Amino acid sequence: MAYINVPEGVPGIRSLVMFRPETGKYLYELAQVLLRGESPLTEAERELIATYVSYLNDCFYCHNSHGEMACYYLAGDRDLVNQVRENYSAAPISDKLKALLQIAGKVQQSGKAVTPDDIDNARDHGATDKDIHDTVLIAAAFCMFNRYVDGLASNTPIDLSTYPLRAKQVAENGYGSHIYAAQ
Amino acid sequence: MAYINVPEGVPGIRSLVMFRPETGKYLYELAQVLLRGESPLTEAERELIATYVSYLNDCFYCHNSHGEMACYYLAGDRDLVNQVRENYSAAPISDKLKALLQIAGKVQQSGKAVTPDDIDNARDHGATDKDIHDTVLIAAAFCMFNRYVDGLASNTPIDLSTYPLRAKQVAENGYGSHIYAAQ
Repeated sequence: MAYINVPEGVPGIRSLVMFRPETGKYLYELAQVLLRGESPLTEAERELIATYVSYLNDCFYCHNSHGEMACYYLAGDRDLVNQVRENYSAAPISDKLKALLQIAGKVQQSGKAVTPDDIDNARDHGATDKDIHDTVLIAAAFCMFNRYVDGLASNTPIDLSTYPLRAKQVAENGYGSHIYAAQ
Repeated sequence: MAYINVPEGVPGIRSLVMFRPETGKYLYELAQVLLRGESPLTEAERELIATYVSYLNDCFYCHNSHGEMACYYLAGDRDLVNQVRENYSAAPISDKLKALLQIAGKVQQSGKAVTPDDIDNARDHGATDKDIHDTVLIAAAFCMFNRYVDGLASNTPIDLSTYPLRAKQVAENGYGSHIYAAQ
C-alpha cells in the first residue's frame, strides 16, 4: 500500500498524479516531450534508455512499463528489451545506442560519473550534441520518476500481463492522455 | 567546458535550457510549481530540501543556487542553510522539517530506501500526506536536475558572490522568468 492516500488500484505514477495533479501535469508533459517529441533518437531508443535506467534503479513498475513501451516500438521483440536490460553491450543494437546507454548508466550513478571519454566514445559512434543531451536528460528524468514511484511506495502490479495493454494505450495516445481525456 | 555546445558564460541549467527549450520549458514549469506553487511547505523549507539533496549529490551549482534561494527566504540566515547542509539534525529547525529531510536523504539514495518508519516518524511530527508527497517529489526532482547539470558538465561559476543576485531575481520573478521575459 502506498505511503500516502492515493486512489486504490491505480498503479504507479498514475495514482500519484491523481493525488497531486498540479505537479503531475508537468511530469506527464515532460515525459511526452522527452519520449515522443522531436529528437534524433527513435521512440524505441528513448524507451530503451528509460527502461535500462529504471532497471538499474530497480524500479519494477517503471522498467516494466517502459520495457513494454520499447517492445511496442520494436514490433514485439521482448527478447531484445531483456538483453538491453541485462547486458546491452552484447545486444544486437547499434554501437551508437550502446555508447549512449553507457552514458545513461553513468548518469544513473551520478551526474559527475559521466567522463569526457564516455562522451568521446559516443561521438566516435556518430552521436550528436542532441543525442547526448537527450540521453542525459532521459536518464536523469528516470532517476526522478523511479524515486517518485518507489519513494512513495505506489501500487505496483506484479502481474506482467497487465503491462502490454497500457503500453499500447500510451503509445497510441501519449503520456497523460487518460488525464487530459477526463478533463 | 560543457560536453555539448551551449551558450558560453551562461551557468548551469540555464545554458541547457537555451540549448533545448522544448524540454527546458517543462523543467522550469515543474520547478516553479514544486518550489513556489501552493504547498503546506514554505518556500524556505522547500528550498532547504532542494539544497540538502543537491549537496548530497555533490552538485555545486544546484546546492549553492538553491542554498542562496533558501537564504533569501530566511532573511539572509546563511549559517542556518549551512547547518542544514552539513548536519540538519542539530540545526534550529522544526522536528517536522528534520523528519522530512530524513525522507529526502533516503530518496537521494534510492526510492526504495524510504521505509515505513521514516514515514511514521514524519507523521509523528505533524507531517501530512501532502508534506510527504511534496518532499519526495522535490528530492526526486533534484536527483534529476543535479544529474542533468553535472552529467553534461555545464558551466558552474565557482565565485559564490555571483549567486545571491540570481537568487533574488528568481525569488522575485519565478523560475524561468528570464526565458518567458525574452519571448
